[in-house]
Amino acid sequence: MVAGRYVSSESRVFHAINAATGESLPGDFYPATEQDADDALKAAQGAFKEYRLVGNERRAAFLRAIAAEISALGAVLTERAVAESGLPEARISGETGRTTGQLNLFASLVEEGSWVDAVIDTAQPDRKPLARPDIRKMLNPVGPVVVFGASNFPLAFSVAGGDTASALAAGCPVIVKVHPAHPGTSALVGAAILKAAAATGMPEGVFSMLYDSGYSVGEVLVGHPLTKAVTFTGSYKGGMALAKLAAERSTPIPVFAEMGSINPVVLLPGSLQKRPHELASKYAASITLGAGQFCTNPGLLLGIKSEGLDSFISELSKLMSEIPSATMLTPGICKNYHTLSEEVLQEKGVSLFARSEKSGTAEFSQSAAILAGVTATEFISNPRLREEIFGPYSLLVLAEDEAELEQVVASLEGQLTVTIMGEEEELETYTDVIDSLSQITGRIILNGVPTGVEVCHAMQHGGPFPATNDSRFTSVGSDAVYRFVRPLAWQDWKNELLPPELQDGNPLAIWRKVNNNWTKD
Amino acid sequence: MVAGRYVSSESRVFHAINAATGESLPGDFYPATEQDADDALKAAQGAFKEYRLVGNERRAAFLRAIAAEISALGAVLTERAVAESGLPEARISGETGRTTGQLNLFASLVEEGSWVDAVIDTAQPDRKPLARPDIRKMLNPVGPVVVFGASNFPLAFSVAGGDTASALAAGCPVIVKVHPAHPGTSALVGAAILKAAAATGMPEGVFSMLYDSGYSVGEVLVGHPLTKAVTFTGSYKGGMALAKLAAERSTPIPVFAEMGSINPVVLLPGSLQKRPHELASKYAASITLGAGQFCTNPGLLLGIKSEGLDSFISELSKLMSEIPSATMLTPGICKNYHTLSEEVLQEKGVSLFARSEKSGTAEFSQSAAILAGVTATEFISNPRLREEIFGPYSLLVLAEDEAELEQVVASLEGQLTVTIMGEEEELETYTDVIDSLSQITGRIILNGVPTGVEVCHAMQHGGPFPATNDSRFTSVGSDAVYRFVRPLAWQDWKNELLPPELQDGNPLAIWRKVNNNWTKD
Repeated sequence: MVAGRYVSSESRVFHAINAATGESLPGDFYPATEQDADDALKAAQGAFKEYRLVGNERRAAFLRAIAAEISALGAVLTERAVAESGLPEARISGETGRTTGQLNLFASLVEEGSWVDAVIDTAQPDRKPLARPDIRKMLNPVGPVVVFGASNFPLAFSVAGGDTASALAAGCPVIVKVHPAHPGTSALVGAAILKAAAATGMPEGVFSMLYDSGYSVGEVLVGHPLTKAVTFTGSYKGGMALAKLAAERSTPIPVFAEMGSINPVVLLPGSLQKRPHELASKYAASITLGAGQFCTNPGLLLGIKSEGLDSFISELSKLMSEIPSATMLTPGICKNYHTLSEEVLQEKGVSLFARSEKSGTAEFSQSAAILAGVTATEFISNPRLREEIFGPYSLLVLAEDEAELEQVVASLEGQLTVTIMGEEEELETYTDVIDSLSQITGRIILNGVPTGVEVCHAMQHGGPFPATNDSRFTSVGSDAVYRFVRPLAWQDWKNELLPPELQDGNPLAIWRKVNNNWTKD
Repeated sequence: MVAGRYVSSESRVFHAINAATGESLPGDFYPATEQDADDALKAAQGAFKEYRLVGNERRAAFLRAIAAEISALGAVLTERAVAESGLPEARISGETGRTTGQLNLFASLVEEGSWVDAVIDTAQPDRKPLARPDIRKMLNPVGPVVVFGASNFPLAFSVAGGDTASALAAGCPVIVKVHPAHPGTSALVGAAILKAAAATGMPEGVFSMLYDSGYSVGEVLVGHPLTKAVTFTGSYKGGMALAKLAAERSTPIPVFAEMGSINPVVLLPGSLQKRPHELASKYAASITLGAGQFCTNPGLLLGIKSEGLDSFISELSKLMSEIPSATMLTPGICKNYHTLSEEVLQEKGVSLFARSEKSGTAEFSQSAAILAGVTATEFISNPRLREEIFGPYSLLVLAEDEAELEQVVASLEGQLTVTIMGEEEELETYTDVIDSLSQITGRIILNGVPTGVEVCHAMQHGGPFPATNDSRFTSVGSDAVYRFVRPLAWQDWKNELLPPELQDGNPLAIWRKVNNNWTKD
């Protein structure tokens, strides 16, 4: 779908697969060509000027219209997404709500208008030795953004997900590279965006969507001279490949790659002693939520050997072994999960604490939850144990004492999240560990679970490498918009020709930093 | 100077050169070794934990103490900097004031404390279907920063310049790679930082400074695993070489390279007709200020053919041919300037409007100001004419009409600044040109000159590639601090263990965005 038109230049066709049964689903999908990608980017660049100047109200109306069109799809969308992703209906309904919620959040952000970070330093004509000029700056959209759909969020991180919503909110046209695991879901959502664009009078090039069963279209999109930024949520390998492609361009552009992590959970002795069963039941649920297919899945549990830890392990093992098996997103992901988790169980010193039963006839699509254990010494010496295994798997590291716990922490790479489970009175004792953990993560949680990423202003979903390739930005929450902008300063400009955000009298009534104070005056 | 100690592991020695005479200046300087670089980074990493938690007051006191120690150097510093850079005494005095002013600005920023962008979304325990957690985030320093001293600002963009001041303000230790053109100036300033660190009780590793007459130490610093960010102001070639080195690391880090630009000035017909002499005198001064050795030097003037333009050219030619010659920063820069400007004059269609006389005996160090002219057609077809020539040179492009002027604008790459010289009543006619220009620049100036970059909150000194490699950040003004931080979110954290910036009751009384409203409450 290039700038409002459906094209099928390629004669090849691919089909969607029912994740649970492996059967083909209805619908023919055409891989895009290099020409399609070029057309989409030229149309996006053409639409950019009109779209970036369309005004806050109309841009917000467009975002709200997308949300409304997606809601209007109702059961048709849910059924298709369930079939393609293997995720249960309740999850897809929840994710649809999150998707429309994100679109409406960004619409509100645009309507309110303060997100542009307007900064005004007024002139001081009498300053000595030199007069100070009037300087005003605000954030401006960078241009066409390429969004890669993610396999694990067929709605909330796909065609009209957080990346698309935040890029459109910033004023950037979007070209989506559809994830081949949910082409039908994508077609429905893409059509919803098209209807919303037409209904709100947006330029056609503001949105395009390209299919590909392989990698070539993605490569063309990332290398295209008109592309100004790229977003990706997925594997380390995939993210790094895109970052490398971007680094080879003659004009550099940012790639925002969220590549997942193992999200360590530190279980402090007090909590293990006082409430091992509560912790176990919280974590059995978090590790296996959505078949463990979340970027924030807790893949690593750390504790100091104690009776409490023993009780926790025994309860968590019992609960995880009873977890019903679940359909994974694709047969490939399922196969990969089982291969990697079985390989880790063969690593030196790793023992199996629990493995759930697979159920159903379509075994190729079903995940078994796995809890493994290892000593701190073995964990520290084996980098392989620190790699993410995408699925309902967690590794429990047993430390002898606090010193060894600190060594484990020191061996960890960058993470999206880190969690501490502890009693209020023992936290002060572990401030050094907590401080070390804060240095390797984007979000640090107390007595919760890392799964369930709140979409709000204060959210940071992005941690030090290799969790992401740029820890300065977030892909969840309203600050995701800051990935697609750059500042522009206007010096001694004529007031009426300034953008309204920077004009005297503050006509949009936004928050602005005027001579270093935030004000709406 | 590694973490407070002077080391001279290398037996090689190099000397400073008097820019005007070519003679050696007193003082032996020792190139650093790979071991020195490693020691400096390990000391920086060791100091990081203490330094980032030192508190706003003490960090600000350190910055103010550096400023005071630099001021106390007085004439010793001025004389040495004049000798090494060839810049006149008034310029060096002014630059010293700017340097201490920057340090004090960042001290104020740190004391005031709001720069950390604290964002708080409070819990909603009763929200359905899921309770909303309490999430609070703020910016945190990334770790050791490597600063490359710039040749053209021996004080304000060197050892204790804007990069160092903003990195120290952010809470990051700094390792400076000294520019070999002003080693003695650097030694004086480095000693001032050392004294300030000792007087305010800072950890020794917070600052190190390494010499090298070549490139190898810089390469080691950029590639070192403990380096978290790099700043550079200089040539396109130098900046891109550092960016490439960083891209080859196994863990990516940002390089902030400000690589200069030609800073186009569009002369609108009304102003040319009404005040050609005023424009000419403004620009004769701006083009030749500091021997044209500013990143924001106006290297390109654009106008539509008219009587007014003819008057402007004739007056500007007269003024520029009368400009006294000036000592350039280094004999190499001077040679490069004359070679490149003479080569451009040989390009097809380029004519010489004015060339000033060289004076004095030391011709190798003296610049002649040059004004050249070319038609729009020739300019558009020859990319070489769009390259920066570092020195007192400007090229005037003559367009037939507004359409051709727009084509010239469309041929331009990213710029640090763009300037419009126009009468109030004619600006509305040129909104399309102005809009196009706004898309390729970091700062857009009306009826001024691009030289003279105000150090303030609203300044943006950083434009689209190739002016910089990352137009999202600025290297001048208080926002320069945002190059060295990343957000960290705290979820459901115990209030007393949060950083003070995020605690209930706002103990530091900073501006915070609480539930999407800026407040000091």
